[in-house]
Amino acid sequence: MPHPLFDKHRALLDAALQAIQTRTYWSPYNEMPSPKTYGETAAEDGKRAFEALLGKKFEITQPGQTGWLGGEQSPFGITLDVQYPVCDAQALVEAGQKAMASWQAVGCEGRTGICIEILDRLNRQSFELAHAVMMTTGQAWMMAFQAGAPHAQDRGLEAVTYAYREQSFVPAEALWEKPQGKNPPLVMKKHFEVVGRGVGVVIGCGTFPTWNTYPGLFAALATGNAVIVKPHSNAILPAALTVRTIRTVLAENGIDPDLVTLCVAEKRETTQALVTNPVVKSVDYTGGNVFGRWLLDHCRQAQVYAELAGVNNIVIDSTDAYKAMLRNLAFTLSLYSGQMCTTSQALLVPAGGIETEDGHKSYDDVCADLARAVEGFLAKPEVALSVLGAVQSADTLGRIAEAQSGALGKVVLASKKLEHPEFPQAEVRTPILLACDAADEKAYMEERFGPISFIVKVADTTSAIALSERIVATHGALTAGIYSVKPEVIDAMTAATWRSKVALSINLTGGVFVNQSSAFSDYHGTGGNPAANASYADSAFVANRFRVIQRRYHV
Amino acid sequence: MPHPLFDKHRALLDAALQAIQTRTYWSPYNEMPSPKTYGETAAEDGKRAFEALLGKKFEITQPGQTGWLGGEQSPFGITLDVQYPVCDAQALVEAGQKAMASWQAVGCEGRTGICIEILDRLNRQSFELAHAVMMTTGQAWMMAFQAGAPHAQDRGLEAVTYAYREQSFVPAEALWEKPQGKNPPLVMKKHFEVVGRGVGVVIGCGTFPTWNTYPGLFAALATGNAVIVKPHSNAILPAALTVRTIRTVLAENGIDPDLVTLCVAEKRETTQALVTNPVVKSVDYTGGNVFGRWLLDHCRQAQVYAELAGVNNIVIDSTDAYKAMLRNLAFTLSLYSGQMCTTSQALLVPAGGIETEDGHKSYDDVCADLARAVEGFLAKPEVALSVLGAVQSADTLGRIAEAQSGALGKVVLASKKLEHPEFPQAEVRTPILLACDAADEKAYMEERFGPISFIVKVADTTSAIALSERIVATHGALTAGIYSVKPEVIDAMTAATWRSKVALSINLTGGVFVNQSSAFSDYHGTGGNPAANASYADSAFVANRFRVIQRRYHV
Repeated sequence: MPHPLFDKHRALLDAALQAIQTRTYWSPYNEMPSPKTYGETAAEDGKRAFEALLGKKFEITQPGQTGWLGGEQSPFGITLDVQYPVCDAQALVEAGQKAMASWQAVGCEGRTGICIEILDRLNRQSFELAHAVMMTTGQAWMMAFQAGAPHAQDRGLEAVTYAYREQSFVPAEALWEKPQGKNPPLVMKKHFEVVGRGVGVVIGCGTFPTWNTYPGLFAALATGNAVIVKPHSNAILPAALTVRTIRTVLAENGIDPDLVTLCVAEKRETTQALVTNPVVKSVDYTGGNVFGRWLLDHCRQAQVYAELAGVNNIVIDSTDAYKAMLRNLAFTLSLYSGQMCTTSQALLVPAGGIETEDGHKSYDDVCADLARAVEGFLAKPEVALSVLGAVQSADTLGRIAEAQSGALGKVVLASKKLEHPEFPQAEVRTPILLACDAADEKAYMEERFGPISFIVKVADTTSAIALSERIVATHGALTAGIYSVKPEVIDAMTAATWRSKVALSINLTGGVFVNQSSAFSDYHGTGGNPAANASYADSAFVANRFRVIQRRYHV
Repeated sequence: MPHPLFDKHRALLDAALQAIQTRTYWSPYNEMPSPKTYGETAAEDGKRAFEALLGKKFEITQPGQTGWLGGEQSPFGITLDVQYPVCDAQALVEAGQKAMASWQAVGCEGRTGICIEILDRLNRQSFELAHAVMMTTGQAWMMAFQAGAPHAQDRGLEAVTYAYREQSFVPAEALWEKPQGKNPPLVMKKHFEVVGRGVGVVIGCGTFPTWNTYPGLFAALATGNAVIVKPHSNAILPAALTVRTIRTVLAENGIDPDLVTLCVAEKRETTQALVTNPVVKSVDYTGGNVFGRWLLDHCRQAQVYAELAGVNNIVIDSTDAYKAMLRNLAFTLSLYSGQMCTTSQALLVPAGGIETEDGHKSYDDVCADLARAVEGFLAKPEVALSVLGAVQSADTLGRIAEAQSGALGKVVLASKKLEHPEFPQAEVRTPILLACDAADEKAYMEERFGPISFIVKVADTTSAIALSERIVATHGALTAGIYSVKPEVIDAMTAATWRSKVALSINLTGGVFVNQSSAFSDYHGTGGNPAANASYADSAFVANRFRVIQRRYHV
């Protein structure tokens, strides 16, 4: 008998299966905060639900609780003061492992149905989640809604869909009949059980606490594993809301809710002990290189899926839409003040300048014109505030100050602090643009997270493509771009990205931006360069998270 | 235009795709050395082709050749004296990397067609390969033919088929059309290129130089990678024949043959430098724990697929077919003198004995009866010689001698040296059976490769199942077995194997043996316990060997 939630969501799953096979546009969760989709009172309800969480203890009944911890600081300056349960990590691991038996027993279809039901519930919570994401990360409202809720849910569903495709390909049983010439055949019945590998830990980041957490969370969960969510210390609330909803749906369906727990840890050592626990078999991580490298070096008992730092770059060779190119780049550099792992950091421009439909533009022209384009785009405060959001961390403010000092290159466009009428304490910053030479590798060839970009003067286009390839291969990148009107240049850049293994956006001049990655169509990260060892999402992201255990006997 | 070899093998591929989905019995390569299948003169031709190789230089024109190396010692005592080209490992890596471009360009269908063509050619070479396998490994003729040729080809095709399934699921291109309400949609064309991750190294073992090499070799090759085959120093010839055939087929199809090369290395350091080369992105390894551990610890730039040592075990609780059970076990322990990675090493028997259709049998009865069954089975020399083969390594002879001394447990059945009329210098040995207590963990709880098995006295069935689970979880196993007439015992053992993640054979009393693993149906290894971190073959075995590199632009 099929699981009722599998039946309920079968049509959605079929559409999702079709989407991962065609990778055309598809999304089941409306990215517009529309009353028609979400309900007439959803916006107000969600806001109130969020506000009701503030200044309180966030109750989740988890095993091994030892105390409470809070301390999130909103980049918008509002007071959050939410306290979360602190639980003994070993107790969470043991409870998760114990809960896996019932999760295995419900089978692939049951797990898939329940996971989609969870996503459905999270979707209904989109406004509440969006406020939580906005106020912990500094994302502006629209981005917090879209990336924090429907787009994150898309990525979660994408992982569930790949997981279903792989698990459902394994037959539950087979009758094996081997001919023996004139003798009767050998006949065996075989059963194939899909078994999760163990407890998974998902470590969230401070800027995209749902979008970067849901893929690993749902990939591990759908494939039969328990999951412990370890959020970034400044973006706990979106994770806590998510975990609570998951636990509710699990319990409703007779699954031990301790299958999914929240781990709030005061000390790094707690996390280190958790992720090296022998029972932990997968770790999903988004964040900096230092801890990422530590995880890869120390979590030898687990498969580590890591998204780390990179140096995203764009080669600008030529264009027939100069203004549109500048507008597109201005948006890319401004969006969430460059605090996206996909934002371009290095724009590689030939020393001799570029050809455009508007005539030749020197390197200095390009610098000045891009600076003007960013200034123009952010001229209206309401536009600026709705795009920039607030700066998430003091470290990023420090990096902006360092860049502003001129230590990293000539300041072509200075960063400005904007006032936010609604949130007077918000740390809002416009992008800073620096000009430097290709030889100044120390400046631009490491990730400088935040609204800091370099216009790098390169000998010529060929050198720019070679430099891009080297940057990606050695320092990693999630995105690369090229602007050129010459097919042979685009071909050369394409071949370079095949070797360095990075996704390429070509001549973006409209309403799509290099830093945007659309679930079910764009693979986020290739898994083939140092910026990420896995992609959202593909078969490799799920296939190694479960094992097939067979048994066989004569019949 | 589809690749002609893809067209040629399309029907076979479709059948293989069906087989991996149903995992019922299927094999395209006849396991019987039948003249009808292989040709009336195939047996004689194959033997002559093999003999023509002896005492000569094995020519393969590879880059960076610096000399010649041989030294294989036949366990059957015949003189091989074949010399193989020694090539600079860095030259092989560079040539492989260079050759990958044309291999990528031929696309998934081209690679799949060419890989199946290669397997077809290898199949036609089955007799020659079988002699090479027999004379380098000590396998008896029939096993050498079956496991060395058609069964190995099955496993190769299985890997190619999974690789095709995953690669072909990635669309070559997509038209992405995102609605924008009343405005025109955003439209982008996207291309998705499947790109191999880099150079793969496949390290063979001394006992199954094709069966354990073809899965990794064909998985890496089919997914777009160059492959360097590093055979065991005593089983080079089957690998060399394979590589030469692959290179011939590649060249016929316009692919740079340096895509696949043979690496014969005199020193371990050469192999260590090869596998840690930054360009090497996958390592497939079958062999002992020491070097396996080294690979896992040091090849951090590569995905390592490792099949290591284990302690296969069987719980004997009860049976309604005592004689048939003993016969089955006698065959399992005798086949290739226990030199299979799937042979049972520890038989766990309750101290109080077992119930059978023939009445109660004490622990001592079971020991004595199994010893008699082995003796009886091997009583006829022609049967014994055709099953046992010869002992592959001096280390195994040493382990037999150690066991024979009584140092590891009470000798229930001593190993005997048999004379081989055809090969007077062959080292043929019958199995040794030892009795020991569950507490004697030092004796039985590490792999003692070769015809050495322990009948371990365990308190009761419950303890036996718990012990089996602990053995598998801590020391690994590729196979586990249970004999019981009680469904609740079988269920308990089944649940234990789900936790410890090992394949289970239940009440084998007929013509299937726990150490046999049938391609397209049995998953060889689960990848979930210390004996192997991957399975032959499943999606996880192929999905992480390639990356998808996308590019997108407005249309």
